[in-house]
Amino acid sequence: MIKVAVDAMGGDNAPGEIVAGAVEAVREKSGIQVALIGREELVKAELAKYTYNQEQIQVVNATEAIATEEPPVNAIRRKKDSSIVIGMNMVKKKEADAFVSAGSSGAILVGGQVIVGRIKGVERPPLAPLIPTERGVSLLIDCGANVDARSSHLVQFAQMGSIYMEHVLGIKNPTVAIVNIGAEEEKGNALVKETFPLLKECPGINFIGSIEAREIPHGGADVIVSEAFVGNVILKLYEGLGDTLIKKVKSGMMMNLRSKIGALLVKPAIKETLKSFDASKYGGAPLLGLNGLVVKTHGNAKRTEVRNSIIQCVTFKEQAINEKIRESLGAQKDIPQ
Amino acid sequence: MIKVAVDAMGGDNAPGEIVAGAVEAVREKSGIQVALIGREELVKAELAKYTYNQEQIQVVNATEAIATEEPPVNAIRRKKDSSIVIGMNMVKKKEADAFVSAGSSGAILVGGQVIVGRIKGVERPPLAPLIPTERGVSLLIDCGANVDARSSHLVQFAQMGSIYMEHVLGIKNPTVAIVNIGAEEEKGNALVKETFPLLKECPGINFIGSIEAREIPHGGADVIVSEAFVGNVILKLYEGLGDTLIKKVKSGMMMNLRSKIGALLVKPAIKETLKSFDASKYGGAPLLGLNGLVVKTHGNAKRTEVRNSIIQCVTFKEQAINEKIRESLGAQKDIPQ
Repeated sequence: MIKVAVDAMGGDNAPGEIVAGAVEAVREKSGIQVALIGREELVKAELAKYTYNQEQIQVVNATEAIATEEPPVNAIRRKKDSSIVIGMNMVKKKEADAFVSAGSSGAILVGGQVIVGRIKGVERPPLAPLIPTERGVSLLIDCGANVDARSSHLVQFAQMGSIYMEHVLGIKNPTVAIVNIGAEEEKGNALVKETFPLLKECPGINFIGSIEAREIPHGGADVIVSEAFVGNVILKLYEGLGDTLIKKVKSGMMMNLRSKIGALLVKPAIKETLKSFDASKYGGAPLLGLNGLVVKTHGNAKRTEVRNSIIQCVTFKEQAINEKIRESLGAQKDIPQ
Repeated sequence: MIKVAVDAMGGDNAPGEIVAGAVEAVREKSGIQVALIGREELVKAELAKYTYNQEQIQVVNATEAIATEEPPVNAIRRKKDSSIVIGMNMVKKKEADAFVSAGSSGAILVGGQVIVGRIKGVERPPLAPLIPTERGVSLLIDCGANVDARSSHLVQFAQMGSIYMEHVLGIKNPTVAIVNIGAEEEKGNALVKETFPLLKECPGINFIGSIEAREIPHGGADVIVSEAFVGNVILKLYEGLGDTLIKKVKSGMMMNLRSKIGALLVKPAIKETLKSFDASKYGGAPLLGLNGLVVKTHGNAKRTEVRNSIIQCVTFKEQAINEKIRESLGAQKDIPQ
């Protein structure tokens, strides 16, 4: 039995969509127990709308909630009875295998490091969302946990990302590339130039060199390594530009009578195709390298993403990802210099 | 009379589209003279296809050409008879007001700095392309000239970018924002944190704070300041993701008979709308802060972009952008501390 703590108060659609996602997850997998953390009366009122195996869902009361705009360090320190702090503590005390939240990214990153803590040997825990590509998805690692990273951090990101893609996504010998502004080895800023030879020499990863941002949507590599500032820019631009282009296409369809009739005929097919360009079916972004699992879902996540994020935790646990990370980073250290 | 030197050998569509663009430019503007630099016999063969005012186009023979993959510093040093080196020298010797090339970005950046040279007081010349947004275009400055920039460089980028947007694009009091991973002042990496207060205090610019990458396509600011690595990632991802999404929409339209019929009706309108999301009508990317003007157009530029890039040089000269940059950077230094 795998136990997943879920922040019922986090994100734009809490608690309704979060509770609905939890119900869907336990209906789908009998081996999961979900602890919904939040204002008890609100969570129970939502739960009352559904029928499900009551032994699979437990409600944990939390009197506080952390808002997105709160300074994360203070919030984690002071709001001991918030859903995020309670959830993180459950993972720390091994009362839960994983914690899923659509709440404040900052608080989740800080709480993961401060409360759950890092696996020994992991220098920085990266946030690693999956982004859609023409060929499927790629793991973008790191996207927000650690700005001004060092080259040794990036090497660990490559190792942890490879393990995740191989064992959670099932991609054999996943390709790894570092985000750069040209394909040649001598290109890049100081960090990339320093990291490139380390990645080339790193055992156990399938490093294929630099990747220009243009190639990311084409599916140029399975694991896209970058420091958090650049990774965050890529992630956010993906969202913003996707929105804008879809809006443009839609407004084009409404331009005149001819196009409006065409739109009626073409819309279902376009919708279907664009669904393939949506990574939410894979769940949320794991914060890798922690003593447990913390998953951040989109702030606007709906029930499907919440359900998938919970189910993702099962694969993570079953595939013993943290044990593999421990071995991989340990093995590297034992290599004679 | 404004004289623009044009690299007839640069880019994927040289010399055909370059020559055609030059012809279109002189047909449109009687006040321009274009010097087409390239293999004389090839350029003349292309020119022979058109009728135009022969006094407006001159051919300058260049026996060499710099390939995209050549290491730029070596290429600029050794290929003295290449179209890029000849064009840069014409600007340096004031035989031309501007140089337009679709050739090797690296060689253009190096040649601009080494041959044309910087305006006194300019620390680094940024490459500043216009990118399309929902509301028009924004200037993304810097996109490739200077990795590992300092905060003082970014402040100058903001100043030069503001002058360009106000006087070349005609946007009154353009808004300036710095690319960041959150909207709050305390967010960011070391460079952004150092630059933010300097931009706040910088006179003569309309600084509105941080911009997350998500807001760039929505038109969140007129001048988007960033160091070159991040700027280059934004520019390339814009191209890659745009391609991928349009491809997805097109393949959706081909899904079944119903959607294919719809596609016939809707395509012209969508095409029209997406045209509004295309910055090539504004010309190429200027390399700002040089003693003259150097404009980089896309490697795959066709005649329209070449024409517009040539005409853009006229506005640049007429609006005395370099004099304004000189004044603006000079004025800042004279402020009592």
